[in-house]
Amino acid sequence: MPDPLPADSVGLVTPQTYHFDTPLELACGKVLNRYELVVETYGELNAGASNAILICHALSGHHHAAGYHSADERKAGWWDSCIGPGKPIDTRRFFVVSLNNLGGCHGSTGPSSTNPDTGSLYGPDFPVVTVTDWVNSQARLADKLGIECWAAVVGGSLGGMQALQWSLTYPERIRHAAVIASTPRLSAQNIAFNEVARQAITSDPEFHAGRYSDNFTLPRRGLMLARMVGHITYLSDASMGEKFGRELRETAYKFGYDAEFQVESYLRYQGERFSESFDANTYLLMTKALDYFDPAYEFGGDLAKALQGARCEFLVLSFSTDWRFAPERSEELVKAMIAARRKVSYAEIDAPWGHDGFLIPTPRYTDVFTAYMDRVAREVGA
Amino acid sequence: MPDPLPADSVGLVTPQTYHFDTPLELACGKVLNRYELVVETYGELNAGASNAILICHALSGHHHAAGYHSADERKAGWWDSCIGPGKPIDTRRFFVVSLNNLGGCHGSTGPSSTNPDTGSLYGPDFPVVTVTDWVNSQARLADKLGIECWAAVVGGSLGGMQALQWSLTYPERIRHAAVIASTPRLSAQNIAFNEVARQAITSDPEFHAGRYSDNFTLPRRGLMLARMVGHITYLSDASMGEKFGRELRETAYKFGYDAEFQVESYLRYQGERFSESFDANTYLLMTKALDYFDPAYEFGGDLAKALQGARCEFLVLSFSTDWRFAPERSEELVKAMIAARRKVSYAEIDAPWGHDGFLIPTPRYTDVFTAYMDRVAREVGA
Repeated sequence: MPDPLPADSVGLVTPQTYHFDTPLELACGKVLNRYELVVETYGELNAGASNAILICHALSGHHHAAGYHSADERKAGWWDSCIGPGKPIDTRRFFVVSLNNLGGCHGSTGPSSTNPDTGSLYGPDFPVVTVTDWVNSQARLADKLGIECWAAVVGGSLGGMQALQWSLTYPERIRHAAVIASTPRLSAQNIAFNEVARQAITSDPEFHAGRYSDNFTLPRRGLMLARMVGHITYLSDASMGEKFGRELRETAYKFGYDAEFQVESYLRYQGERFSESFDANTYLLMTKALDYFDPAYEFGGDLAKALQGARCEFLVLSFSTDWRFAPERSEELVKAMIAARRKVSYAEIDAPWGHDGFLIPTPRYTDVFTAYMDRVAREVGA
Repeated sequence: MPDPLPADSVGLVTPQTYHFDTPLELACGKVLNRYELVVETYGELNAGASNAILICHALSGHHHAAGYHSADERKAGWWDSCIGPGKPIDTRRFFVVSLNNLGGCHGSTGPSSTNPDTGSLYGPDFPVVTVTDWVNSQARLADKLGIECWAAVVGGSLGGMQALQWSLTYPERIRHAAVIASTPRLSAQNIAFNEVARQAITSDPEFHAGRYSDNFTLPRRGLMLARMVGHITYLSDASMGEKFGRELRETAYKFGYDAEFQVESYLRYQGERFSESFDANTYLLMTKALDYFDPAYEFGGDLAKALQGARCEFLVLSFSTDWRFAPERSEELVKAMIAARRKVSYAEIDAPWGHDGFLIPTPRYTDVFTAYMDRVAREVGA
């Protein structure tokens, strides 16, 4: 944590764990009888409980979105650029709720938790959860927090899918949905990349059909490969070129298979670090949630029809060099919203960083996001 | 082989093996004292030996570019769409030479060959070869075949790099170079994808540091993953969408980790088939040849300067939806050729298939290619 603390930081935060005892029925047909969600909040809930914002995380995200867990923590939460006093999601006006989703590996009940019914780790027995399951679990969290209606549900990438699903599953409990760098459904190419990641993990001999913990090991190589291929899709060709180009680690070609180009050692490092800190079963589960998401599915593929159930207003943002969920995918969503006569604000942000653009503040991104959230705040009297 | 044989097929072909005993010095500093190249030829060399075309193959290619090896063979050679009587590379006019490159696994000397100096398999001891090394070995093949000067050297992707390198290393021995769906150098993103493939292979416990054959095994899972990720980059997002979309194998989600979407089982099948037929050490070596290729390197990154040594004319073709080697990469090359005052014909072919477009005939592609090769034929009196 920097000293002195910047004025726009939420500062020290302490996660809290919420216990749920009402059985949760999942899309797959299974039931979770008991579960926990780990949560961080920033700002204060107002008297009318009208100023609450839900932050939904992406594939490898978690509840720690802003501030610091301790004075020793070097890096702030993953969306600290957008959450804090004076930032787009202004914690002087909003009460911000950020959780680790069900199935995660950062404190909420997931594959690396103990199954209370058996006393042993869930591991691969943890059920496959969907975006709708997450939204249902988040609605129960809202109940516990005394939040009848979110001022906004906000998320990037897989988080944007949750914001969109909130507008459909609980139309009366959400005033605004901010769907950022997201898509109404994965393309075949998106699914294909996820499948490579899953095959990398499940084919690692250390995976042991998901029971690696029982075998006192981890599928490190598989998870590393999964992260490496994922990481490539988060960046743009141009930003990788800018960052690494064909830069060598030493001065000449070595004609061997050690990392020679800077981009190789960067990717290996990212993959290795991730493989030490993220749970493989959770990774599998998150990629499946992505694959399954398709709100138009029950409506014969007609997204506009699906959106007719929504009542909230929408902010949709895309990033010009994002090729994972390209601007065209956001435009598809916006068109369907317009066809369904929903109110929507849309901007394509010109930024060089690919999909990762939603994590990186640029003047236009910050301006558009701030202006929209300011309107939300005024609307709810915050 | 279809019966009756189509009039535009080269029909039955028989590969031939050429032995070389003059030591070949490689870019890495090592020397190959003896090696073999397996070669196919189509058409007849004319009296002046002026009508010879060299076909260079891409990453997973080989010498079998056209026709059939036997009446039982179901699929024709990999570029049968472009080579044959009446096709762009018209075998009634040209003598076409197609080889498996050094380091390959289809008959030419490579990691799966026996090292004549030791009597055991090369395996991982086979030296890393570069595009320039290939061009040098191809020049010796030309000597053996009595070809002083190629009417044209033609290749797609990694094959296009060889055509380009020919123009620089042997400017007096090549009249035309056709550089198709290629690039003057890999981008950081290209290298990153190659590195994922290499890591997948080398981290497979069955890889045994490249000595899988000595261990009576194969790094099948690694090679499968490498092929899966490669395959995604060969197709366009749109063509994968067109071919598979979000099509399920069964009628509903199964909420598990078996292949559910058609694109998943397609990729697995492609990967598995490849892993049974391709040598892992060769795959590694081919990806390194791609990474290293950078003719501008010795000229301080100035491609136009590198091209000043060339004497031939160029045909450069790119494909609109190719995101592996996008049209911009070909345009970069064309601009450098113009700056170096080389003669160049360029066309971007509008085709939906991504990088694979160079293997798939479309009217405009066929027309442009045919017109150019017709000019080449007339020029050499073929």
